[in-house]
Amino acid sequence: MFESAELGHRIDKERYRKDVPELREALLNAQIDLQEADFPVIIIIAGVDGAGKGETVNILNEWMDPRHIQTNALDAPTEEEFERPRMWRFWRTLPPKGKIGIYFGSWYSAPIVDHVIGNTKNAELDQSMERIIRFEKMLTDEGALILKFWFHLSKDEQHKRLKSLEKDPHTRWRVTSQDWSNFKLYDRFRKVSEHALRQTSTSEAPWTIVEGTDPRYRSLTVGKAVLQGLRARLDVPREQRQLMAVPPQIPAIDDLLLIRSLDLTKSISREKYEEELTEYQRKLALLTRHDNFRKISVIAVFEGNDAAGKGGSIRRITSALDARQYRVMPVAAPTEDERAQPYLWRFWRHLPRKARFAVFDRSWYGRVLVERIEGYCAPGDWMRAYSEINDFEEQLVRNRTVIVKFWLTISKEEQLRRFEEREKTGFKRFKITAEDWRNREKWEQYELAICDMIDRTSTEIAPWTLVEANDKHYARIKVLKTICKAIERAL
Amino acid sequence: MFESAELGHRIDKERYRKDVPELREALLNAQIDLQEADFPVIIIIAGVDGAGKGETVNILNEWMDPRHIQTNALDAPTEEEFERPRMWRFWRTLPPKGKIGIYFGSWYSAPIVDHVIGNTKNAELDQSMERIIRFEKMLTDEGALILKFWFHLSKDEQHKRLKSLEKDPHTRWRVTSQDWSNFKLYDRFRKVSEHALRQTSTSEAPWTIVEGTDPRYRSLTVGKAVLQGLRARLDVPREQRQLMAVPPQIPAIDDLLLIRSLDLTKSISREKYEEELTEYQRKLALLTRHDNFRKISVIAVFEGNDAAGKGGSIRRITSALDARQYRVMPVAAPTEDERAQPYLWRFWRHLPRKARFAVFDRSWYGRVLVERIEGYCAPGDWMRAYSEINDFEEQLVRNRTVIVKFWLTISKEEQLRRFEEREKTGFKRFKITAEDWRNREKWEQYELAICDMIDRTSTEIAPWTLVEANDKHYARIKVLKTICKAIERAL
Repeated sequence: MFESAELGHRIDKERYRKDVPELREALLNAQIDLQEADFPVIIIIAGVDGAGKGETVNILNEWMDPRHIQTNALDAPTEEEFERPRMWRFWRTLPPKGKIGIYFGSWYSAPIVDHVIGNTKNAELDQSMERIIRFEKMLTDEGALILKFWFHLSKDEQHKRLKSLEKDPHTRWRVTSQDWSNFKLYDRFRKVSEHALRQTSTSEAPWTIVEGTDPRYRSLTVGKAVLQGLRARLDVPREQRQLMAVPPQIPAIDDLLLIRSLDLTKSISREKYEEELTEYQRKLALLTRHDNFRKISVIAVFEGNDAAGKGGSIRRITSALDARQYRVMPVAAPTEDERAQPYLWRFWRHLPRKARFAVFDRSWYGRVLVERIEGYCAPGDWMRAYSEINDFEEQLVRNRTVIVKFWLTISKEEQLRRFEEREKTGFKRFKITAEDWRNREKWEQYELAICDMIDRTSTEIAPWTLVEANDKHYARIKVLKTICKAIERAL
Repeated sequence: MFESAELGHRIDKERYRKDVPELREALLNAQIDLQEADFPVIIIIAGVDGAGKGETVNILNEWMDPRHIQTNALDAPTEEEFERPRMWRFWRTLPPKGKIGIYFGSWYSAPIVDHVIGNTKNAELDQSMERIIRFEKMLTDEGALILKFWFHLSKDEQHKRLKSLEKDPHTRWRVTSQDWSNFKLYDRFRKVSEHALRQTSTSEAPWTIVEGTDPRYRSLTVGKAVLQGLRARLDVPREQRQLMAVPPQIPAIDDLLLIRSLDLTKSISREKYEEELTEYQRKLALLTRHDNFRKISVIAVFEGNDAAGKGGSIRRITSALDARQYRVMPVAAPTEDERAQPYLWRFWRHLPRKARFAVFDRSWYGRVLVERIEGYCAPGDWMRAYSEINDFEEQLVRNRTVIVKFWLTISKEEQLRRFEEREKTGFKRFKITAEDWRNREKWEQYELAICDMIDRTSTEIAPWTLVEANDKHYARIKVLKTICKAIERAL
């Protein structure tokens, strides 16, 4: 894999002087075109120490217009980053459409280093790489152009390079004892990274291996590769970009639907309701004050038919909590900043810290419900959303987030009754809009989408709880009980 | 000041039961109207320990729709917050238009506590309060509705309350030894907070003092006050809101303008340029690697005539730096998220951490330049921007941020020459737009605005550097020199 990058590539001064001005102009022009394009560019700079990664990042900033580049250098995670899933720090720095984000140190760094120093097993490394593949696939599916560069040096060359950096008083500060102890691990690092690179060189985001010995060679190589990548993408008209294939779906040829199989007559008496409400609210309050609650966070997702009582159920939860520890996120149309990012970005930005409780009133599932039904996104987009969502929730769970997901179901008749009742009251918060009536007309389409959603995203780690909600009281208690049980299990 | 809040206000159960449902409905309706309004609501909950602050925050969340409330509890600042000016943590949590932000613990907490425990002098407290007044004035000028509640308990009552909380096993956890040592400082706390409250009870954002003894009394009082505040604001049609007075400006009755007094023939030879460029870029590189650089951050602001060479000067700085430590922010039209916040919010969100370098290509000064000339904001808005900007920069400087501000001036003739030259080249990045020509027609208006800006915002702590830029090389060296000198002084 590294054979070609140990050949001793060199570019002489004349060639460099001749090529660079033209390349810079072309890069600047591509950047200007990019500003009006609908995709972001992610450049990953990784590889061996001393192979010129930092210098290349600087050169790219110098050759291009740094105003449209975000350079992200990976320091140790901050406290705020540490409390959230590993990928949060990358999500929060993703470049929006039209911009270039350079990652110096990236999602590859930690898994590779962890394995080199022996903190993880082979299977864990493979698993990490598998997750990265899925993450990058999501990004490219969302339109991102990913360019990955691996800077390589042979063992001899790395040794020479560290020595010569140390000699020069102006660069001495850059060589730390850490660098030397890393050098001792050269062979292992090479083996592990070769494995990682091979695994993650996908058709959507392949690696480019660059020999790092000669500064002119590596700069020109990366510069030209970036230009090529940009142009290849910019010069294809939007319409011609390959349409995502839509996997076949099971056609609904009978009436047996999961969502119709619920027993909506389930109910609870007024007395029992009052009693259990007090009991479970009290329980929830105590659970969130448990010592171990500091180590977890909770996300409750509410989806359901219009007028199914999501708001009422949410208030029964929040009134048991301390307002300092929860936040309710109503999900509406994305803002401009959010539209310039991958779909899930707007949820990542609201992930709770440890010991916090986030309630989503509608959620990322909008992608496979309203966006699917209304055609707000292409079929390929909502189809891939199922696995993107599963990946997202898996990361949350790995970070010790308790996820509870509720689908509140009412019958079509009950909805009509509630709509009509609401139209009679003067309470503004119960306003029924034309949109509610329109959604109602698509009841059967929604039923199919809901069943698909549950089949595809009710996982062992983040199962859906279907809530029979014709009786509001019954629904509220079921919701509270489920949350208490889930937190109890996690503590 | 606290007399009325020690009278022993109580509300009996019947009255409470009668009033609450009506109040809740009215609050919910007001919240719905707020969603379509163009202002945010900021509720501050402060006061004596044990006076029911937390309970009131919870009640407000319970009575209103928590989906449109952001509750911000003031914990210890995180590492990311700690590295930025004190107010950054509040800026990042400001509610956008249409939402309510509840601050439990606010910008009052630290200055009052610091003074009570004797860390600050009287003058320092006064200074902090003065800054808060200016901050709140900015918020209200931007349209925010600020409601400030101070929860009071007499010394006897506080003692009783802490005792009774301690007795109940369900509330015992809430009383810490900190609370008891705070109690010992009751008299001093009372004195200091009375002083602070008096000073910061402005016509735009007055305090409401609430007796905290009786839960029903305090909840109902705050609920009704919030409703009143909301309705008073919602029920006034937008047009009728009092127009901001515009302070008189010195009329320009002669031709003596600061900006015209510059000697634009200043220049530098090619050889000298190359020599000094190397010298100062090297110097800058070394300065940013100085040990003490970890304790400061740098902000460089570039403003200037179109085609004055801002981009070229910026690149001469960034190419001396490590790409990992700088970011260039090109300032364009605000996004939707940004338009829902006070004007300066979009700059606060990009403040650099320690040891980082932020370059703004155009900046917050757009408010008093293009927005003033093009009428994008009302005269009152850009007039008050001068002092808001001064306050902003003062906070930066207090946080050990080095601010350098450049105005790059070229003559009208030189601009014409550059425009015409650019129209001949094929380089996209030099495209001259119709807007550039339009701006040029307003040359004289801009001159006045520029002089006003410099007169009003060139302060001792953040002075403007006027750069004669007819000769690009001269300008670039002056910029580099100025930055080096400023950093040197700060280290």
